Amino acid sequence: MPAYDPNNIFAKILRGEIPAHTVYEDAETLAFMDVMPQGEGHTLVIPKAPARGLLDAEPASLAALAATVQRVARAVKAAFAADGLTVFQYNEPAGGQTVFHLHVHIVPRHEGVPLRRHEGGMADPALLAGHADRIRAALGA
Amino acid sequence: MPAYDPNNIFAKILRGEIPAHTVYEDAETLAFMDVMPQGEGHTLVIPKAPARGLLDAEPASLAALAATVQRVARAVKAAFAADGLTVFQYNEPAGGQTVFHLHVHIVPRHEGVPLRRHEGGMADPALLAGHADRIRAALGA
Repeated sequence: MPAYDPNNIFAKILRGEIPAHTVYEDAETLAFMDVMPQGEGHTLVIPKAPARGLLDAEPASLAALAATVQRVARAVKAAFAADGLTVFQYNEPAGGQTVFHLHVHIVPRHEGVPLRRHEGGMADPALLAGHADRIRAALGA
Repeated sequence: MPAYDPNNIFAKILRGEIPAHTVYEDAETLAFMDVMPQGEGHTLVIPKAPARGLLDAEPASLAALAATVQRVARAVKAAFAADGLTVFQYNEPAGGQTVFHLHVHIVPRHEGVPLRRHEGGMADPALLAGHADRIRAALGA
């Protein structure tokens, strides 16, 4: 596995070098809207500690990530009145990974609505800002 | 969300009522081969504590699940010389869930090999037993 590259876009988001539609943040984790959503409300959760993927995460960071995934997943489901949630985590290009900082996808799902392709295009920033507002409200933040 | 149904097939596996090709077990978690693999080496990790999905898992159980997912993912990648790993976790039918006990899918991936459909059929038990042996060997078990 290649070494962690601190110039990946999620590292830049963590450093505040590029913006994100943040929905949740604590000492160990950050959650924000995916800019190429596979469904309305598609949210990403990442650890703040550098890790390329699942395999090289430190145990404490991974535990914090799992807790935040659960917390944000509950809020995403509520915010979008979803019937279900699909959670993905991709490792290495063969596994579907395109940004090389560990991240978990949370996609709200509704009966009969298929997932959109991830490469389906950039979402309107104003739309994403509104979605982030809904999730933050569901988190009570 | 409906209540946990203790007659789901993973609960039966946990109670030893139906067999599984187990690759790892500890006090909190169990890992075994998916009988309808989406790729060679497709493995499932579940908590022993009852939970229908991600949203109703107890924090300690979820943390243990995450740790076992990482441990087993490393072994699965090694055992199948995978280029990457795709990890899925489905909640409710709209989210793709078909067995209503929280579980995480770990699928080894190779460049240029697409995922098979989950409904692609039951794998040969002898083949799965051999795959489980490979993963246990990679775990040093």
